[in-house]
Amino acid sequence: MDPTTPDTACFEAGIKFGSLYHQFAGTPVSPDSSASLARAMEESIENQPFCTDVTVEIRDDELEAALAAQSAEYTELTGRFIDVEIVIDYEGATVVASMAMDGDYPRMQLDRVERP
Amino acid sequence: MDPTTPDTACFEAGIKFGSLYHQFAGTPVSPDSSASLARAMEESIENQPFCTDVTVEIRDDELEAALAAQSAEYTELTGRFIDVEIVIDYEGATVVASMAMDGDYPRMQLDRVERP
Amino acid sequence: MDPTTPDTACFEAGIKFGSLYHQFAGTPVSPDSSASLARAMEESIENQPFCTDVTVEIRDDELEAALAAQSAEYTELTGRFIDVEIVIDYEGATVVASMAMDGDYPRMQLDRVERP
Amino acid sequence: MDPTTPDTACFEAGIKFGSLYHQFAGTPVSPDSSASLARAMEESIENQPFCTDVTVEIRDDELEAALAAQSAEYTELTGRFIDVEIVIDYEGATVVASMAMDGDYPRMQLDRVERP
Repeated sequence: MDPTTPDTACFEAGIKFGSLYHQFAGTPVSPDSSASLARAMEESIENQPFCTDVTVEIRDDELEAALAAQSAEYTELTGRFIDVEIVIDYEGATVVASMAMDGDYPRMQLDRVERP
Repeated sequence: MDPTTPDTACFEAGIKFGSLYHQFAGTPVSPDSSASLARAMEESIENQPFCTDVTVEIRDDELEAALAAQSAEYTELTGRFIDVEIVIDYEGATVVASMAMDGDYPRMQLDRVERP
Repeated sequence: MDPTTPDTACFEAGIKFGSLYHQFAGTPVSPDSSASLARAMEESIENQPFCTDVTVEIRDDELEAALAAQSAEYTELTGRFIDVEIVIDYEGATVVASMAMDGDYPRMQLDRVERP
Repeated sequence: MDPTTPDTACFEAGIKFGSLYHQFAGTPVSPDSSASLARAMEESIENQPFCTDVTVEIRDDELEAALAAQSAEYTELTGRFIDVEIVIDYEGATVVASMAMDGDYPRMQLDRVERP
């Protein structure tokens, strides 16, 4: 069957999550640099089509915990350190999706799909 | 409204495309190394959940054209050089999606959504 | 032969350039988002060892020229759009290195090596 | 002072390490896909100037250990899982450099610098 408008809106939401994660995973990060990195992640992904809003929170508490347990004074960005919400508007459909830790896995999920 | 099974299948397809593109964009590539890169792209993304099949074709003709027009003997991977097809199976829904150039833009799109 | 202190300082400078380029190449960017991206690039790489200072300038004029020649309203970060200077201090040796376009190639080069 | 030939050879070696690490860190990987990823890493970086040889070994034992301790059946590539050796030849200077874990930190280092 052909894709519907909500199908495409959900596909677009997924693209943004995969892009955000794999563009920025591995970036050197510390509590001192987390604010500028979060802002760049938001603004870069908001360039992509149909992407109304991106909110990235880098969890400084988790960064501090990671740094306390290792020798270096910075670490690499990975899912453990970020909460993300993305809003997509595509031809009257609105999708809200988020990423957060689910146990030890950074789970990306659809929170709400408003159909046109 | 809550997401349906096809919504999530389409979201998962999008995640794979965004991941593949932004993990590997920028990789140094030439006709001599394109086969190993294509294979690594396929096998790495097939690790992700619900991802049944990934097919990546790196277009050596486009690589040759790019190299003929520049000074260096390699270039950076970007959408112009790749055709991709991804198949997702999620709780009885099947999604086939692809990426190819649409004029000057690497368009990722849903080709078929089979609902459970 | 064993590496000298200046050898290692130059090696460290190279690591920072390769890291910066391949972490951020492919990031969606437009004149509206270039300032936050440049700042994140600087602050993330400054986390790395022996890295005293990183200066990234994203060339909005080149971005505008690229956008005028294509259909999408953003592009992907690549060497054409950035000028970079990095300063390394390693055990009394100071290295200043930079990246800028050399014809059509983003050339990374050592500008100055001050030996201890 | 102006850079010497060995300075530049060491700088080039660093570029290759930073490139390799930050291009591929975050790639989904499992014991089933590690061989193709290692090969793509080698061949892509060998495209870069002055890079004679790249050897990447992905440590399947470390991958197995990581997978045994988590819920997902794949993980993200990071320094813990890879040993790398890179050989640079630049205007008669030869540099051999490597990356391996030093405690909990993926240490990149110069092993040998042969001056022209």
